[in-house]
Amino acid sequence: MPGPLGIVAGGGHLPRRLVDLCQSNGRGAFVIALEGNTEISTVEGVDHLWIKMGQTKRAIDALRRFGAQELVLIGPVKRPALSELRPDGYTIKAMAKLGFDRLGDDGILAAIVRHLESEGFTIRGVDELLGDLLAVAGSYGRFQPDDQAKADIERGIAVVRAMGAADVGQAAVVQNGIVLGVEAVEGTDALLERCGPLRRSGLGGVLVKVSKPGQERRADLPTVGVRTVRVAAEAGLRGIAVEAGGSLVVDAEAVVRAADRAGLFLIGIDLGA
Amino acid sequence: MPGPLGIVAGGGHLPRRLVDLCQSNGRGAFVIALEGNTEISTVEGVDHLWIKMGQTKRAIDALRRFGAQELVLIGPVKRPALSELRPDGYTIKAMAKLGFDRLGDDGILAAIVRHLESEGFTIRGVDELLGDLLAVAGSYGRFQPDDQAKADIERGIAVVRAMGAADVGQAAVVQNGIVLGVEAVEGTDALLERCGPLRRSGLGGVLVKVSKPGQERRADLPTVGVRTVRVAAEAGLRGIAVEAGGSLVVDAEAVVRAADRAGLFLIGIDLGA
Repeated sequence: MPGPLGIVAGGGHLPRRLVDLCQSNGRGAFVIALEGNTEISTVEGVDHLWIKMGQTKRAIDALRRFGAQELVLIGPVKRPALSELRPDGYTIKAMAKLGFDRLGDDGILAAIVRHLESEGFTIRGVDELLGDLLAVAGSYGRFQPDDQAKADIERGIAVVRAMGAADVGQAAVVQNGIVLGVEAVEGTDALLERCGPLRRSGLGGVLVKVSKPGQERRADLPTVGVRTVRVAAEAGLRGIAVEAGGSLVVDAEAVVRAADRAGLFLIGIDLGA
Repeated sequence: MPGPLGIVAGGGHLPRRLVDLCQSNGRGAFVIALEGNTEISTVEGVDHLWIKMGQTKRAIDALRRFGAQELVLIGPVKRPALSELRPDGYTIKAMAKLGFDRLGDDGILAAIVRHLESEGFTIRGVDELLGDLLAVAGSYGRFQPDDQAKADIERGIAVVRAMGAADVGQAAVVQNGIVLGVEAVEGTDALLERCGPLRRSGLGGVLVKVSKPGQERRADLPTVGVRTVRVAAEAGLRGIAVEAGGSLVVDAEAVVRAADRAGLFLIGIDLGA
């Protein structure tokens, strides 16, 4: 039996779900909570350490002290500007070694994973630990994309993949062939909210979320949940397409209920290898 | 001497500038004004025809009647959803031939240009007619990008080019290596406005506008003007980079005054062939 799972927790409810799992299966967990990112509820009743971004040495020491040799990075983290970081000496050295200032979002995550591995930790993917969250191929609820929606999904995938090659974004909104919006750091909710007023008349658009080519899958998979469905419906969309095996559907049952109620489709798309 | 210039006028003040030029040099102009796009001031005191998008036959007949054999497409046009179009029979046939529904923004423009050429028109680029608007390499005003801004410009160019390969957008905002936003149909002003609140602490970001690889240069070059400078300053940016020879600076003198006053740099970047 390995020691407790080390959970480096970003925002949202996913980290707490993992804490609950580790507590219910007896493994236990130790949480590194990031100021300004982690929800308070994530650390209730579980061993944890709050740190500011950049206090890597304290985090690593604490993880070792608690015997957490396996780590998972889970939940979105707002990437700070370099100028906001107050890195400790250890972190500065690691950043220099990694060429931190020259990396995109995913490049940085991949570099962090490699660095933690070089410190002797094993990094597990969220999808390994919460495999039931991983999107599957096919329709989730009652509704299916029609031909226009399928064409929009195809175009959305091409756009997000092209952006992803430059290590930006994981989402796009497409309506009848028109790319209404693409995501950078603002997040999917903000993307959807601004696409509402940009909506053209006619059939509504689709939200497409897929991982980047070569994405570090142990760090930052695209995620949809009940809130995504609600905001997508408010923006006048007809459905959501996620990458089967490359994105997470959190609370699938509730998501399907919300999608069915709102008249939206949710579909997992198999992108092949 | 060719007949009057046929001006298919989108929004903004650029079309009027071209009308004025044709009137002052004695060539004359005939304007196709697009409902919902063209400014009223564009057609004052010049022969013109207002059409809805899709009334191509009327436009072509009128251009021929006025002897306008050379055309220019100038100013941004809101791309309508297919469902908003009320195309005439001629347009429907042309759209079917062009495979309209499968094209991105730039693909559509290129197809329209090819189609007009097949009808015997000669299509001129804005840059041929208003060559003094074409961005030149080097700094426009008093301020220069520092090393961080130069790195942000480089990253912005890579991102916009990657998106452009999927025929989306011409602009991105980058701050200290972080891509705050990328443009789809919302336009540069809306991009800048949403990047204001997304701004991180530290040195401000840059706006990068470059053309798409293989862009139909006779249709839709990226443009900056006084308003761009003002909105960029309000969003906390430090400067603007445009593609030398591949974008337009409208009212360069006024733009430079605005940039100098706001403390922003404006630089034309030579991207090579």
